Amino acid sequence: MSRLSVSTIAAAINSGTSTAETIMAETLARLAAYDAVQPQAWISRAAPEALLAQARAIDARIAAGETLPLAGVPYAAKDNIDVAGLATTAACPAFAYQPTASAGVIERLAAAGAICVGKTNLDQFATGLNGSRSPYGAPRNVHNLNYVSGGSSSGSAVAVAAGLVPFALGTDTAGSGRVPAAFNHLIGFKPTRGRWSTRGLVPACRTLDCITIFTDTPADARLLDAVIAGFDVADDYSKPLANRPLAPRRFGVPRRDQMNWFGDGEAAFLHDRAMATLAGLGELVEIDIAPLLEAAQLLYGGPWVAERTAAMASLLARRPEAVDPTVRSVVEQGWGKSAVDLFNAQYRLAAIKRAADLMWDRIDVLAFPTTPTSYRLAEMLAAPVALNSNLGLYTNFVNLLDMAAIAVPAGTRSNGVGHGISFIGPADSDVALIELAETWAAATGHPSPPPLDLEGKMQTVKLAVVGAHLKDMPLHWQLTSRNAVFAGAFETAPSYRLYAMAESTPPKPALVFSDDGAAIKVEVYELGVAEFGSFVVDVPPPLAIGTVTLADGSSVKGFVAEPRALTGAQDITHLGGWRAYIAQRTA
Amino acid sequence: MSRLSVSTIAAAINSGTSTAETIMAETLARLAAYDAVQPQAWISRAAPEALLAQARAIDARIAAGETLPLAGVPYAAKDNIDVAGLATTAACPAFAYQPTASAGVIERLAAAGAICVGKTNLDQFATGLNGSRSPYGAPRNVHNLNYVSGGSSSGSAVAVAAGLVPFALGTDTAGSGRVPAAFNHLIGFKPTRGRWSTRGLVPACRTLDCITIFTDTPADARLLDAVIAGFDVADDYSKPLANRPLAPRRFGVPRRDQMNWFGDGEAAFLHDRAMATLAGLGELVEIDIAPLLEAAQLLYGGPWVAERTAAMASLLARRPEAVDPTVRSVVEQGWGKSAVDLFNAQYRLAAIKRAADLMWDRIDVLAFPTTPTSYRLAEMLAAPVALNSNLGLYTNFVNLLDMAAIAVPAGTRSNGVGHGISFIGPADSDVALIELAETWAAATGHPSPPPLDLEGKMQTVKLAVVGAHLKDMPLHWQLTSRNAVFAGAFETAPSYRLYAMAESTPPKPALVFSDDGAAIKVEVYELGVAEFGSFVVDVPPPLAIGTVTLADGSSVKGFVAEPRALTGAQDITHLGGWRAYIAQRTA
Repeated sequence: MSRLSVSTIAAAINSGTSTAETIMAETLARLAAYDAVQPQAWISRAAPEALLAQARAIDARIAAGETLPLAGVPYAAKDNIDVAGLATTAACPAFAYQPTASAGVIERLAAAGAICVGKTNLDQFATGLNGSRSPYGAPRNVHNLNYVSGGSSSGSAVAVAAGLVPFALGTDTAGSGRVPAAFNHLIGFKPTRGRWSTRGLVPACRTLDCITIFTDTPADARLLDAVIAGFDVADDYSKPLANRPLAPRRFGVPRRDQMNWFGDGEAAFLHDRAMATLAGLGELVEIDIAPLLEAAQLLYGGPWVAERTAAMASLLARRPEAVDPTVRSVVEQGWGKSAVDLFNAQYRLAAIKRAADLMWDRIDVLAFPTTPTSYRLAEMLAAPVALNSNLGLYTNFVNLLDMAAIAVPAGTRSNGVGHGISFIGPADSDVALIELAETWAAATGHPSPPPLDLEGKMQTVKLAVVGAHLKDMPLHWQLTSRNAVFAGAFETAPSYRLYAMAESTPPKPALVFSDDGAAIKVEVYELGVAEFGSFVVDVPPPLAIGTVTLADGSSVKGFVAEPRALTGAQDITHLGGWRAYIAQRTA
Repeated sequence: MSRLSVSTIAAAINSGTSTAETIMAETLARLAAYDAVQPQAWISRAAPEALLAQARAIDARIAAGETLPLAGVPYAAKDNIDVAGLATTAACPAFAYQPTASAGVIERLAAAGAICVGKTNLDQFATGLNGSRSPYGAPRNVHNLNYVSGGSSSGSAVAVAAGLVPFALGTDTAGSGRVPAAFNHLIGFKPTRGRWSTRGLVPACRTLDCITIFTDTPADARLLDAVIAGFDVADDYSKPLANRPLAPRRFGVPRRDQMNWFGDGEAAFLHDRAMATLAGLGELVEIDIAPLLEAAQLLYGGPWVAERTAAMASLLARRPEAVDPTVRSVVEQGWGKSAVDLFNAQYRLAAIKRAADLMWDRIDVLAFPTTPTSYRLAEMLAAPVALNSNLGLYTNFVNLLDMAAIAVPAGTRSNGVGHGISFIGPADSDVALIELAETWAAATGHPSPPPLDLEGKMQTVKLAVVGAHLKDMPLHWQLTSRNAVFAGAFETAPSYRLYAMAESTPPKPALVFSDDGAAIKVEVYELGVAEFGSFVVDVPPPLAIGTVTLADGSSVKGFVAEPRALTGAQDITHLGGWRAYIAQRTA
């Protein structure tokens, strides 16, 4: 079952070379197979029989002579968008309800013949950019299960990137429709605010929310925009359809000294390569991104967080414990914002918007990294707010400043995680942006994404340290400089002896397995394989990195010692660990 | 010195039939003369010599062959608009500053040859619709000095209506550019938000504020709009110039059962007459104004008041006592509004805006009363918040819903105070509204305003009541039904005797002057002459309305009694007043 595009499926069904029922049966098989890998991509799915019945109904209409632009095309919808017949949860079971009507975009897709197979997981209430904030589990990057999928439209990105459906609906307030596209090698199209109806969407920030689409190709995004875009009088934020004529030749790129990759040298390398390609399509113009970054600060650092609070006010009052703790810690800050704060921030935003609008005199579109870096799930869980914030560096400002954007693939890290760039244009530049994405895809030779990671890759290593690498000890920096994540303080199995080595600078211990041993205190860190490798390089004799058995019987990599380490060494096993020895020594 | 229009002056100066110096000399004479009537119309004026020098400079340019659209036209600016060389006070001395540059609109007027003669009084920080909220005094209606001028652009309306200058700048957030136009028989044009630069304006509600113009004729408003309108990149809320083609034939009028005149039957009568005239220009379509009134409630009743708080935050923190007490009582409410409140209100406003936008399918423009009624200054001071709020019933919603408006004269009350209607259209209908105002002026025969009130008219009467008309007594309703305003509880001079009359229903006293008298408690009410007259009609014998001397020696009208009133009456002078008698009687 090869991956099929939206247009291929619709054409095959409309022409009778395939049937909606066949496509749906294949889709059900794909879904079932991938459930073995990431069932947490989904919050709910329609019953297979019901889906097949819907497919047969499409086939009957085609047989009767109709042509439908999305005939029989299966798709997924993020679970903050109402689909009649399926619960809407916003990834919060306490919030769940049964919608009586489908959202405006769902109605349009249904009218065009598309079939919604289920509702996908998300960062709760679409508050997050990483995918880890859900009681339904954390979707992972389909190309490397150690990494976050990106969010908040995590499950929708996974569903398309894993080839389960040819498109899926996400939403985007701060980058939720673009960040997961970048990580998973997808097109992520975020239309101009008001272009696609948001009726039937659980609000995150009502004035900023957009429904978005993930596809494999810009052509599919164009086809879907043609179906979905249009004024909806029942959506107070819907706007009349407008298209700004634009032939992008001048690409605004961040001033080099203002870029931040958060240490991700591979992303910087891939981005430079992408910019070299882009230079073949026009002129690169460096712009000052400080005003854009200031606007971004308003979204979570300023009073806009109160929009999220307003949207969740009843739940926060009624059942605060039902809200994801990270989401809650973010959203509860909104209570403290005053209307005066908000008006002042809106004035500041108007000033930034004016400055941003003047950019369009010098450039046609922005070409920014979609994200500066990506993170492993373990890292994200250890610093859930700070790392999430890093992911939004180049996306947060877009909705606030009423811009449209399309995220496109722009390279693959050695670990399989995608690097992406985003073309960002003024309001109503949607069609021009999609066309630019097509030009970009052609210029980059329509690269295939890397293979799916169906089992989980050995991408991180757990390492037990026992002496000078412990927290606050002299060599701990060798871990922090490698972005090692603290995984816990443990004891070894009761079968080790600990020695203070002679003439070691700084003082270092040797951990030695022994039948007559004791439990020794260790700290375990998790770090990337590459970082682990470089760490091992730096370990001096007589020490070495071997395997250490922990008290629970599990094994991790860890410091061991050659026998010579014991020469002149002092047995300090009775102290139970290195810290006690250092404390005694300095006392 | 007859009243001259903007276009007449500019044409005369450009053609050489007059000079700017001549016009300015005449203007200075007008200003000096009217200072004897209402000096409080102004907060500051430019020095006469400087104005004459400016005028001569214009004359030199004309002599050199230039043509200037506003050559030598004198005008006034509300004192919340920066004019270089004059202080900006916003009617708050503690807030005053010397602007280094003129506001955007002032620059455009200067470039066109207009000359600003001074800065006019206003409701402090443009917070009010009546004109009484200023430490520089309360401007009055030029046609009846007992009545408020309307506000907040009080002094600017007075300056034009008194014929001192042919136009003046006001501002408008909730009706401040329209209410005073109605009361003073002027054109008050409030452009679409962003059409005229607000750079250099002291904000009231920054997202809603508009600079406005008072003129005698729509033609002058059209001429001034052509000079002033245009994009100002330095104003974050400026918008590109746009004109909506519109030929108004369908006039939306309030559903009859939703109108409220607050007891002003004369206004209702004048309005009916105006609507009969309007019916000759097109079709009147009744609309449901409930959504518009709900939007209006948001302005002062909801979180928008926090915009005013934001604008005055530093002053309120530093010198709260420097703020007008009524303004302060209004504006300090903004501190209590949360960002969550504001977002929820903005959502509600978006819904109302959508409903309002749908109106334009059925009608071309709204034709509303500009105000439901008008008030005497004494009344306004007695209930400064409630009565002010009544004045904004038909104006408050306009800026919130991004509409443009022009207030036009539509009748004269017997007391000289103007009744007005406002044509209100969607954003960018500005030119169409001005053209409609011209059509209206022609249809009504370009009526002249009533004569100026240069001395103050006897329009209200003070009446002392002593018995059954006292507050909470059986006949008190005869005062309240006539909108009588309580002026105070007093005692008479110590030269009256008080009797309880025999066989009077309800029980009533007789107040009788006597050399052997005492001070008797009375209540004094102020009511309009017409109401007073009808009140007197209703006074039964043996009582009458005569003159009563109060303890301070002043005289007011009051209840006296024929001699027969004493027949069988009980002398209750020793009780000091009627309340004590009633209390004793019922005890």
